[in-house]
Amino acid sequence: MLDRFLESAATLSTPTLGGHGEVTAWLAETTARGSFTTEAIPFAELDGWSFDPDTGDLGHRSGGFFTIRGLDVHDPAGVVTAWTQPIIHQPEVGVLGILVKEIDGVLCLLMQAKMEPGNVNVIQLSPTVQATRSNFLRLHGGAATKYLEHFTEPGRGTVLVDVLHSEQGGRFFRKRNRNIIVETTEDVPLHEGFRWFTLGQVHELLRQDNMVNMDSRTVLACLPMNATARPPERRAGELGPAIVESFRQDPEPAGIQNWLNQAKGACELTAKLAPLRDVGRWTRGERVIAHEEGRYFEVVAMSVTATGREVRSWTQPLIAPCGTGLVGFLASRARGYLEVLLQTRVEAGTPDIVELGPTVQCMPDNYLHLAPERRPPFLDHVRTAQGKDVKYDVVLSEEGGRFYRAENRYRIVEVADDVRFAATPPGFRWASLAQLSALIPHSGYLNVEARSLLACMRALC
Amino acid sequence: MLDRFLESAATLSTPTLGGHGEVTAWLAETTARGSFTTEAIPFAELDGWSFDPDTGDLGHRSGGFFTIRGLDVHDPAGVVTAWTQPIIHQPEVGVLGILVKEIDGVLCLLMQAKMEPGNVNVIQLSPTVQATRSNFLRLHGGAATKYLEHFTEPGRGTVLVDVLHSEQGGRFFRKRNRNIIVETTEDVPLHEGFRWFTLGQVHELLRQDNMVNMDSRTVLACLPMNATARPPERRAGELGPAIVESFRQDPEPAGIQNWLNQAKGACELTAKLAPLRDVGRWTRGERVIAHEEGRYFEVVAMSVTATGREVRSWTQPLIAPCGTGLVGFLASRARGYLEVLLQTRVEAGTPDIVELGPTVQCMPDNYLHLAPERRPPFLDHVRTAQGKDVKYDVVLSEEGGRFYRAENRYRIVEVADDVRFAATPPGFRWASLAQLSALIPHSGYLNVEARSLLACMRALC
Repeated sequence: MLDRFLESAATLSTPTLGGHGEVTAWLAETTARGSFTTEAIPFAELDGWSFDPDTGDLGHRSGGFFTIRGLDVHDPAGVVTAWTQPIIHQPEVGVLGILVKEIDGVLCLLMQAKMEPGNVNVIQLSPTVQATRSNFLRLHGGAATKYLEHFTEPGRGTVLVDVLHSEQGGRFFRKRNRNIIVETTEDVPLHEGFRWFTLGQVHELLRQDNMVNMDSRTVLACLPMNATARPPERRAGELGPAIVESFRQDPEPAGIQNWLNQAKGACELTAKLAPLRDVGRWTRGERVIAHEEGRYFEVVAMSVTATGREVRSWTQPLIAPCGTGLVGFLASRARGYLEVLLQTRVEAGTPDIVELGPTVQCMPDNYLHLAPERRPPFLDHVRTAQGKDVKYDVVLSEEGGRFYRAENRYRIVEVADDVRFAATPPGFRWASLAQLSALIPHSGYLNVEARSLLACMRALC
Repeated sequence: MLDRFLESAATLSTPTLGGHGEVTAWLAETTARGSFTTEAIPFAELDGWSFDPDTGDLGHRSGGFFTIRGLDVHDPAGVVTAWTQPIIHQPEVGVLGILVKEIDGVLCLLMQAKMEPGNVNVIQLSPTVQATRSNFLRLHGGAATKYLEHFTEPGRGTVLVDVLHSEQGGRFFRKRNRNIIVETTEDVPLHEGFRWFTLGQVHELLRQDNMVNMDSRTVLACLPMNATARPPERRAGELGPAIVESFRQDPEPAGIQNWLNQAKGACELTAKLAPLRDVGRWTRGERVIAHEEGRYFEVVAMSVTATGREVRSWTQPLIAPCGTGLVGFLASRARGYLEVLLQTRVEAGTPDIVELGPTVQCMPDNYLHLAPERRPPFLDHVRTAQGKDVKYDVVLSEEGGRFYRAENRYRIVEVADDVRFAATPPGFRWASLAQLSALIPHSGYLNVEARSLLACMRALC
């Protein structure tokens, strides 16, 4: 039997939902209904946000939302043995939930067209529920979170997935969100800005720049797929059949767990919160907190005005990255099924410090002045690949509620056998998609960039 | 096909290893070969260990081994909203590894008869490797850890399991060890104190008091079992067939993950390390650090002399619990397969604070003076059950390298349908053995007491 989500991935239109034209029209209509303006302002003009006189931490007077604090990192065995940096501290577990329901015999996903201040465009597709705990408990007032009850009340549906996943470990301190997928058979009212999509329709948008947000991608990566039938034939040279085939394999992920846990056990990095005031090599100006070399990211203050049925304005800090990142998998069909090249990735802010990351994850601009042999392994391969080896090449945004115009280029590059069977550098290892699918329903394995890229890869099937 | 570990569980003797008589003789011979004496001493007589003049923390001059520090806990929603306590701090990941190999066509486990200062008896069965990272890196000198290479060198065998598991969250701060099972086909030399066992032989010892140590039990709980054939008929009324049957079920653990993650998201407990000097309601005397009500545990100092082929002496602090604990599952076959009653268990020292614990886990003496309705749910049921409902009732020790004579009574009590289908109190939920088996290869689900009890339950099959 083909998995129900694979069936949905192969379905581009249904009688009730329509097809590509209806999706495009709905997106245009939703976009026309409201807009956003954002303007950089001095920190002094933030409303309700201020720097603590003792610690220099940037927080809200309610004690809620999030705080920009300092992080003090020591890594005796690292290339850099100690550093300090600003970091987002938000010690609560949010909910990222996608509600699914069978419509016209096909499993469909309830998605939201969501405006967020940091988006490069106005709206992006977000999960059914994307809410911090403070949000959905309405600690700051605000409207009730729509559809929340499907994810928090017992017995409202069949829970397909519920897993605590980390987020960007270079920017968040030990942040984790629940990634939840619930199947319902109830009648579900459709609120403004929400629409049912087949997985194939979501995948079409995921192959376009900046249309499917990070919160959606991490939940999509967790969709359970498990095919027992041989997949339909597809065009030669494409990855689709090999991806579907991977859902039929026996995963046996213990070898990957062994490799990752070896790295976790060996890692000596320690990271603890510190006053933002004590963060060296970063300076606080009127409008930005920036690194002395202009690298990594800046903390900025923004005034946001949302127009729509009503006008809402607020101010908030955001993290603005310095440049566009590159996130890429090298992929191979050398053994007849699909494998990707992983790295054990050390990030000071993740709960376990070490997680599995994609082959390449960096800001290329930080390295291109170096000789090729001093750049991160495989950077040039992933960055410069062209033609039919490039299976996926899309610019996607990170979380628009915390990051300002944070874009990464996501690439999947297929390699020939000589690369696949060459020795890998320390800290790199090939893993099958089946192994990753077995690990993704559990915490502490795949970092957010690897999960995002896994969702992108599935959009090729 | 019956799983290879289930085959091993059903095998009580092999031509090469012999049976019960040979195991008993080997244990007697090994016990006769050496012994231990321990003597309580004043803290001032500890060699190399002292209280830090600033913090009052009890540590070793090398900075290694472990430190007794303070823990400052706040739990706004808890019955007790704030407390401080001593806690063991040892920020490194150790290895608990069992090597397995096919002998006479049966998978066998290489186990060690290990002397530890806190053991109530001299020796207990421990895993092939039971070593802190400092131990196996030989930071404090000492001999090389035997068989370590099978668990740390790539390509030495097939990794069946490798998972980071927490330990006692009331006594350790964020301690995790790697639980590893590796199958080898190499010739393995047998060092003194080591012996191959069938799983059935290990299970025989696990049904006796204080013979299989905690480190063994947590690894045994991780043994992957997966039967596709119907199990052989066993005696009516016993749990064996229902346990084996559970290895054939589709686990679908997402409902349990959902329930646990809901509790993790809602938990507001925070815990941070603090100076031992600032721990209130605990007092430091010449020989013990104790709670003012004589509850929980004491920190004591011990002089240890081991005799055997050579005589070795040392001193170290140990944690001595105040009383014998009770750890129990209520179990049910009401739906035709085996389920146990779990609780979401809040423990300040575990990395995620909340994990899944057994039905009952407490020191009964702390509660027996209370009216029955104010005692922990199910305490009386698990404690007082008698006769054929009691499927397992064995006293087992916790880690003898850190704890002094720490014993818990482990009980598995079968309940009738009226209990199984009664409403459960908040924080309790029935789970199938299949669900637990699906979660146990991953971090952050089952606490060490639940894992131990799961290993005991498997000893009934």
